[in-house]
Amino acid sequence: MDASTRIETALRATLDQASATDGPPRLAEALDYAVFPGGARVRPRLTLAVAAACGGDGSPLVDAAAAAIELLHCASLVHDDLPCFDDATMRRGKPALHAAYGQRLAVLAGDALIVLAFETLGRAGEADPARLVPVLMTVAGGVGAPHGIVAGQAWECEPSVVLSQYQQAKTGALFAAATMAGAAAAGVDPAPWGALGERLGEAYQVADDLRDVVASAEELGKPVGRDIALDRPSAARELGVEGAVARLQGLVDGALEAIPPCPGREELAALLRSQAASFLPKELAQQAA
Amino acid sequence: MDASTRIETALRATLDQASATDGPPRLAEALDYAVFPGGARVRPRLTLAVAAACGGDGSPLVDAAAAAIELLHCASLVHDDLPCFDDATMRRGKPALHAAYGQRLAVLAGDALIVLAFETLGRAGEADPARLVPVLMTVAGGVGAPHGIVAGQAWECEPSVVLSQYQQAKTGALFAAATMAGAAAAGVDPAPWGALGERLGEAYQVADDLRDVVASAEELGKPVGRDIALDRPSAARELGVEGAVARLQGLVDGALEAIPPCPGREELAALLRSQAASFLPKELAQQAA
Repeated sequence: MDASTRIETALRATLDQASATDGPPRLAEALDYAVFPGGARVRPRLTLAVAAACGGDGSPLVDAAAAAIELLHCASLVHDDLPCFDDATMRRGKPALHAAYGQRLAVLAGDALIVLAFETLGRAGEADPARLVPVLMTVAGGVGAPHGIVAGQAWECEPSVVLSQYQQAKTGALFAAATMAGAAAAGVDPAPWGALGERLGEAYQVADDLRDVVASAEELGKPVGRDIALDRPSAARELGVEGAVARLQGLVDGALEAIPPCPGREELAALLRSQAASFLPKELAQQAA
Repeated sequence: MDASTRIETALRATLDQASATDGPPRLAEALDYAVFPGGARVRPRLTLAVAAACGGDGSPLVDAAAAAIELLHCASLVHDDLPCFDDATMRRGKPALHAAYGQRLAVLAGDALIVLAFETLGRAGEADPARLVPVLMTVAGGVGAPHGIVAGQAWECEPSVVLSQYQQAKTGALFAAATMAGAAAAGVDPAPWGALGERLGEAYQVADDLRDVVASAEELGKPVGRDIALDRPSAARELGVEGAVARLQGLVDGALEAIPPCPGREELAALLRSQAASFLPKELAQQAA
């Protein structure tokens, strides 16, 4: 089964378990709406790729970790789009969840997705409880306080913020959790895998800032120019487009150097290099080619 | 250490781990504000009491399960108080979290508390991973979709709802998780302990409906008359005050009959009977005496 099929299958299975016929039907619909159809599924792909590189992608915890990371990413998108944050109307080419189902179901769907992520890990951990603990702790660390994506979003509520610290928490933390959880699910010490995820997360954030400046709304599936409109920190604003592209390429190179020794190191590097190329907005990828 | 001290100590320890000096300070403050000072801590007391009755309250998972249940309860209060739900201005005798810190930090604090609950379980599970799985699955089932408290709140977004189903999910589910998690953390099969929690949860919900009609705002620490103002289902509205009191007493009697065989059955029944008396608003407790 290819990575994409594995991820969609794992997400479908876990969503089905959250939707019983005697549960509230609109919540079940909203959960589905938040997760399908997905974006590029960059983070769970990373989890699967790292687990494979570590030589241990046979555990059910691998697919569960990938699904959990994506569910938590979807939850953060739903909550970040709320009127009190970004007030985003579009996401992944369709109305944002709160625009389609109302704010109340948007808050609840985000909450339910967070719970479901950990439930998914727990269910997969039944066969191998000892391996569950490092996977769970890794995933939780990437999401919660004080250093996960919730903390990253919370930096936007502080009177002042250091750009690198903000981006590390808001984006880098979940990427680091994605690589580390892949290693942990494969039965390998996750700690050395954090740097790879952090650097890829930084690269992805820079690419995201660039897309917000350069890409079309059609290409993104959401409005552009939001960072400037919301006065958010942005590498593209601070460094200019060319400076940001150079920074992105440096970050990808640095990320690949950070891959720890493992059986599938070469294949992982090749895979990540081709994925990183897809981070760039089409306009810049053509210029860079 | 008495139950109250154990609960506050466990909550303090887990909150401290969510507050690093390099994390966003206002989020850390908001988390503290959401958890301390607490209410009656009814649910975590239940977890400790059941674990003790099962003869197994020595595992670190017992205190962790109690703390996780309370963190999830606090998270639900913070999100339920948001303007898009109850728009509550007061909670536990002080301004609701969103009134004190803004809606954005209220959404994020709720999210962080949910993550922290599972992180707390994971940390305690390191010493006994096999026991972690049933505790985690029990807690998650009481909170998420399709039958947990998030689903309960989501029933308020449906065009029609059956009162018993709504209350079972909104209140009963977390009470059932509290009793079952206590048993699971003590190394006992949690399933037979669900009925006790469900019935106590129903009793507590009826008492809550009564308090909303009978008690003073000062006694509750939040405004009264909200169920009628928000046109919410309420046993006190459906059955009248006397009918609701009779129903509450029947539920408590039924709950105590549902205690499964265990070493500390008598002590548990006595403890729960005295706690249940404190569910009633003072005005009615005096009438009933």
